[in-house]
Amino acid sequence: MNGYANNKDQLLARLKRAEGQVRGIARMVEEDTYCIDVLTQVSAATKALEAVALSLLADHLSHCVAEASAQGGSVAEEKIREANEAIARLVRS
Amino acid sequence: MNGYANNKDQLLARLKRAEGQVRGIARMVEEDTYCIDVLTQVSAATKALEAVALSLLADHLSHCVAEASAQGGSVAEEKIREANEAIARLVRS
Amino acid sequence: MNGYANNKDQLLARLKRAEGQVRGIARMVEEDTYCIDVLTQVSAATKALEAVALSLLADHLSHCVAEASAQGGSVAEEKIREANEAIARLVRS
Amino acid sequence: MNGYANNKDQLLARLKRAEGQVRGIARMVEEDTYCIDVLTQVSAATKALEAVALSLLADHLSHCVAEASAQGGSVAEEKIREANEAIARLVRS
Repeated sequence: MNGYANNKDQLLARLKRAEGQVRGIARMVEEDTYCIDVLTQVSAATKALEAVALSLLADHLSHCVAEASAQGGSVAEEKIREANEAIARLVRS
Repeated sequence: MNGYANNKDQLLARLKRAEGQVRGIARMVEEDTYCIDVLTQVSAATKALEAVALSLLADHLSHCVAEASAQGGSVAEEKIREANEAIARLVRS
Repeated sequence: MNGYANNKDQLLARLKRAEGQVRGIARMVEEDTYCIDVLTQVSAATKALEAVALSLLADHLSHCVAEASAQGGSVAEEKIREANEAIARLVRS
Repeated sequence: MNGYANNKDQLLARLKRAEGQVRGIARMVEEDTYCIDVLTQVSAATKALEAVALSLLADHLSHCVAEASAQGGSVAEEKIREANEAIARLVRS
């Protein structure tokens, strides 16, 4: 099971858009677009991926972590440890 | 109650160190230190604060969120919503 | 003219890889992959885009900004102002 | 010489404020303030340091890098390489 089941369509739409953004950046590079204009689009694509990550994380905490915590025990601890590592990777990326 | 009760001494030591780093940066500026050397210290202080944030967040999820989730209900939902907003602020800062 | 002319093939290869990463993330979501595993790939794709941005910026400073500065005047000032804005967008994204 | 000579007072004022923010966070921890409220202040202090870094970098490019580029040669190249490394550290911190 995963936490984003109810958001799957929205997530896929966002990822399709992000993929299109990255493809658009490649096209800009092929057409020798001015560096700063390419950079602006890279920042936009990065922000789009960050929004995907925050959405995935929010669903994960609301469902997977909340349910494991309701059951308690070592599974709950492991889920929280794992979530913290994912958050740290995200903050540092 | 707060989630970092068991880590309070370590947190305070880290914050004292971060405060010293920021004061050290001000001293470098007063002494007209070369820009790049000042910048290196600003990056180090930023990373130190990020580590404080990740530690606070980990404790918050392990204690406050886990306990609220174990009880369930609207308090649990509110705690998770609040944690997600804090994570988003952190990722964007 | 653009600053990345000599790095175009490498940039395009990186962007093709990043596009593949984003498409791979969509596939993971379609297949209901575990949230944390999806998140790990989102962090990797974000880092890949960040590397593209740093490479574009390095080429821009080495060529466009350096050449404008060599000529001086208001064009040089404008180029530097523009670069600083791009850096700020990058740091905040 | 350094690039922030004309902004020194403003930089020192910002750093003094950031130092006060970090000291304030330590006080919050001492007084067992709720985790999320502490985290909000850590995000604010991190943003303040980021603003200091962007200001230092902007001054560095406008003065040190622009002047070295106007002279050209290996000193200019070295200054730009160095600036690119500082930007990468900043983006990754």
